[in-house]
Amino acid sequence: MRARAPASSANLGPGFDALAIALNCYVQVDVEPAASLIVRSAGHGADLQGDATHLAARVVSHVLGHDRFAVTVHSQIPVSRGLGSSAALAAAAAAAAGAEDPLAIAAAFDGHPENAAASVMGGLVAAAMVDGHVQAAHLSLSEELAFVAIVPDRSLSTAEARSVLIDPVPRADATFNLGRMGLLVAGLAEPSVLSSAATGDRLHQQARTALFPESPALLAALLEAGALASCWSGAGPTLLGITTVTTLADVAQRTEGLLIDIGFAAQVLQLQADRQGLVFGDAAEMPT
Amino acid sequence: MRARAPASSANLGPGFDALAIALNCYVQVDVEPAASLIVRSAGHGADLQGDATHLAARVVSHVLGHDRFAVTVHSQIPVSRGLGSSAALAAAAAAAAGAEDPLAIAAAFDGHPENAAASVMGGLVAAAMVDGHVQAAHLSLSEELAFVAIVPDRSLSTAEARSVLIDPVPRADATFNLGRMGLLVAGLAEPSVLSSAATGDRLHQQARTALFPESPALLAALLEAGALASCWSGAGPTLLGITTVTTLADVAQRTEGLLIDIGFAAQVLQLQADRQGLVFGDAAEMPT
Repeated sequence: MRARAPASSANLGPGFDALAIALNCYVQVDVEPAASLIVRSAGHGADLQGDATHLAARVVSHVLGHDRFAVTVHSQIPVSRGLGSSAALAAAAAAAAGAEDPLAIAAAFDGHPENAAASVMGGLVAAAMVDGHVQAAHLSLSEELAFVAIVPDRSLSTAEARSVLIDPVPRADATFNLGRMGLLVAGLAEPSVLSSAATGDRLHQQARTALFPESPALLAALLEAGALASCWSGAGPTLLGITTVTTLADVAQRTEGLLIDIGFAAQVLQLQADRQGLVFGDAAEMPT
Repeated sequence: MRARAPASSANLGPGFDALAIALNCYVQVDVEPAASLIVRSAGHGADLQGDATHLAARVVSHVLGHDRFAVTVHSQIPVSRGLGSSAALAAAAAAAAGAEDPLAIAAAFDGHPENAAASVMGGLVAAAMVDGHVQAAHLSLSEELAFVAIVPDRSLSTAEARSVLIDPVPRADATFNLGRMGLLVAGLAEPSVLSSAATGDRLHQQARTALFPESPALLAALLEAGALASCWSGAGPTLLGITTVTTLADVAQRTEGLLIDIGFAAQVLQLQADRQGLVFGDAAEMPT
């Protein structure tokens, strides 16, 4: 069986561990019976070890209860860049193996219910663990919005990005994020009220700047290039500019120019929201 | 000039200092020229001192720049019960005095931008202070929802309710609230996905239970009576059950029965969302 899942951008500034948006960049997984385990990989992540330790092999093996299968992964999603590649791969692998609840499996293997929910459900989602289970729901996302992603040439592990976070946090910082998340959710539904303040965050981005000192200048560059708001994508180092469909190409082009001025090596992607989430069979063909 | 503003319920569980909803219970304010200050008051809050220290007098005096006016307040909103009576009064008084930006004035006098935004804009709002100014936006609120309020016979001052809050807070509690707030906003837009987990909170309700030991039993009673979710209204002691329009009367009746069983003295109100916010002139007549 074949399944496909989209990349995702979690947190979006204030919505730390709570919000994610599915993006039109995909991983496709095929699972077929075989005499013994075969792992094939193409595209991003093809350099990872193709054995039983591969995430796709672990997920499929968990679902099937044995390792007599061939799993083929074809990914457009940059790895360890904060674009939810693991959650998307786990969701697609679980679905391709015939799992009844790919969301639960993806969240369990990846540890990020919000990324898993976006990859399975598509669109903008809120997610949380409730009594050990993922509870997730769609939030309204305007058709007018699009996204510019700065994908640095370096990677940043989620574990490392999490190790720099502070704990406990000032109560004022917790309420700051709640307030900005409210403004952000309102602005993603209705771009006319989306301001750059809506992606304000005090719980993770500043602490993670120690691992990525250029990030404040790059977040500012996205705004200077015309994005309505900018934020880290997941645990980074990808940075996301929220823009409109009509200005997407312009903002991306100006961002590329500013990256050259700053002298920062990165790929600039023009992305749309994915609204389908997990798809199966013939529908799971990769867009080119 | 005459103006009217609705009560509001802030926080709604996880959306501490960030979310509020306007409710169809009102305060009406009339301002007319007079030789010297006159403060008249009817309904809730009529026992408050009718002099220059009255919130309505202070707000109108601030807007007009003098005290040669008569202000008449007629309020249906219980005072010091967590229903945003001060924010609503400040908004209506500012508007009745001809203020250009009643929201800014109400937020400044009351200190709660989310209550002020709900009273001015109506509906469900997100609000935050951004660079010293209130930034507020509507969030989607289903027409299918209604509210049961348990309004205790005792009051609870916001200052006292705030003094028991802890600071700093575990980072996990901050992210818990972000996750639940995402689920809540999704559920208020689409009641079919609203669960009782969506009003989960770790930043204020538990700490405030010391001031209101019966509150956990009452929140549970609202759910037992059929509410989809329950939470404190603002800083309490009013507790809110989120229900559907079709089950509102039933849930309220069952709640009254459970209060008798528990032996807790309170009024049970059946409320709808107000969608108009601040209204002026003839439109500002009080509904009966």
